[in-house]
Amino acid sequence: MCQLLGMNCATPTDITFSFSGFAARGGETDQHSDGWGIAFFEDKACRLFIDHESAATSALAQLVKSYPIKSRNVIAHIRKATFGVTMLENCHPFMRELWGRHWIFAHNGHLTGYTPELNRIYQPVGSTDSEQAFCDMLEQLRAHFGNKAPSLDDIFEALARFVMPIHEHGTFNFLLSNGQALFAYATTRLQYVVREYPFQKAHLVDTDMDIDFSQHAKPGDRVAVIATEPLTDDESWTPFECGELIWFQNGKPHRRMRTLSPEQQVAAKARAVTLADQ
Amino acid sequence: MCQLLGMNCATPTDITFSFSGFAARGGETDQHSDGWGIAFFEDKACRLFIDHESAATSALAQLVKSYPIKSRNVIAHIRKATFGVTMLENCHPFMRELWGRHWIFAHNGHLTGYTPELNRIYQPVGSTDSEQAFCDMLEQLRAHFGNKAPSLDDIFEALARFVMPIHEHGTFNFLLSNGQALFAYATTRLQYVVREYPFQKAHLVDTDMDIDFSQHAKPGDRVAVIATEPLTDDESWTPFECGELIWFQNGKPHRRMRTLSPEQQVAAKARAVTLADQ
Repeated sequence: MCQLLGMNCATPTDITFSFSGFAARGGETDQHSDGWGIAFFEDKACRLFIDHESAATSALAQLVKSYPIKSRNVIAHIRKATFGVTMLENCHPFMRELWGRHWIFAHNGHLTGYTPELNRIYQPVGSTDSEQAFCDMLEQLRAHFGNKAPSLDDIFEALARFVMPIHEHGTFNFLLSNGQALFAYATTRLQYVVREYPFQKAHLVDTDMDIDFSQHAKPGDRVAVIATEPLTDDESWTPFECGELIWFQNGKPHRRMRTLSPEQQVAAKARAVTLADQ
Repeated sequence: MCQLLGMNCATPTDITFSFSGFAARGGETDQHSDGWGIAFFEDKACRLFIDHESAATSALAQLVKSYPIKSRNVIAHIRKATFGVTMLENCHPFMRELWGRHWIFAHNGHLTGYTPELNRIYQPVGSTDSEQAFCDMLEQLRAHFGNKAPSLDDIFEALARFVMPIHEHGTFNFLLSNGQALFAYATTRLQYVVREYPFQKAHLVDTDMDIDFSQHAKPGDRVAVIATEPLTDDESWTPFECGELIWFQNGKPHRRMRTLSPEQQVAAKARAVTLADQ
């Protein structure tokens, strides 16, 4: 399994504080030491760092922790390989171009018996179910909307439909961004916190580090942080509902949609328990 | 304008020595300080670092200089913006996926009046003529061969045709790799050196740095380094002919093709002089 970290902001913000706690889970406070990756959007451009070393100790992770890249959309991932070797091409996040923008995707969970037909435009480079799901969704977006970008509302509503046949194959928690918005979906574990005026102090669970955001942030700043498990122990994190898709924009949830009926939620949770037992 | 650096190797090799000299041109020994980038293939995976700071001073470049990433195909670029602002999305190299492999492209030169129709699969994210040319060539490869990868020989021969209508718009020196091979094309400036057994010493032009490759390399190692201008002053660099396409494989030229007739070479050189005068 693995863990996800996302950030969506009203103004370009650096993620060094949250990433420091998150990276500690890559081999220090937790066992997710089989590679990691992080992608920073800077307007339309995207910087993607991937590494097959442990996020807790790698030289690249040290640079990311100490080098404040300011971004409005960030997606990070740490990996615990449950099967197969640790290959760099299997490190999340994954990147593709669609409609003249980079798209970034990271996934937490397993998909079993999921074999989408991917011999067309987007083909996986590595061997993960996650990259397959990413390619499948991009393929469907392109098939549905053609070669011209639709509105973000149209994309959001289409994603809510496209996740349906995929989530039935297992656990499907993901973060997806094209630099304009961050879309987050969870069938089991994803939580978020919004930091805004008046900013507070926060203390990381994973490293003994405090920050007083009121000393750093300006009144217009607002930041949503999304993570598999809360990164701080003194903030109020909101868990996603099972099957909830949330579109984050300007540092807060902009639209949210429940994709599953109560019966489908029960089935999704039962699948997650079965998979965890394997 | 800008400068290119490429490396193709028989065995995974680090580029820290050559990159140290090359990066010095990004603001120290030369004026190419408007961003830089480098891509390392590790089998099918690719690590891409781009930065809008100067390669001579950026923290990311320091990391690349000190962190020996072993790769068989590397493409790097330093940029001197001749017009327009320095935007991260305009930093080379550019990356796209085709046939389940990452493709990396960097270009030196200008293309004027070049407006390919790019509203289909590959659309530029930034505003450079270079990314347009990259998208144009990938679009043509896909249109020609469909959704299944052809042989490298087929790709090489197709590229030799696809460059023809593009080079007529100006100067077109580029490096292109999918991790299996490195294709290099020049209408004006590109040179290469092959380092192999028995290895020699080499001295960088741009920084007072020597290396004795015989102390580091093993008998099976072989490395081709391709650059806009020679990086060392005690090795024998071979200039590309005007219009020459070379496929580097296992650290040496594997196939080469002259795409231009003597008359076309004269015209291409005249265009380069005209552009340089502008």
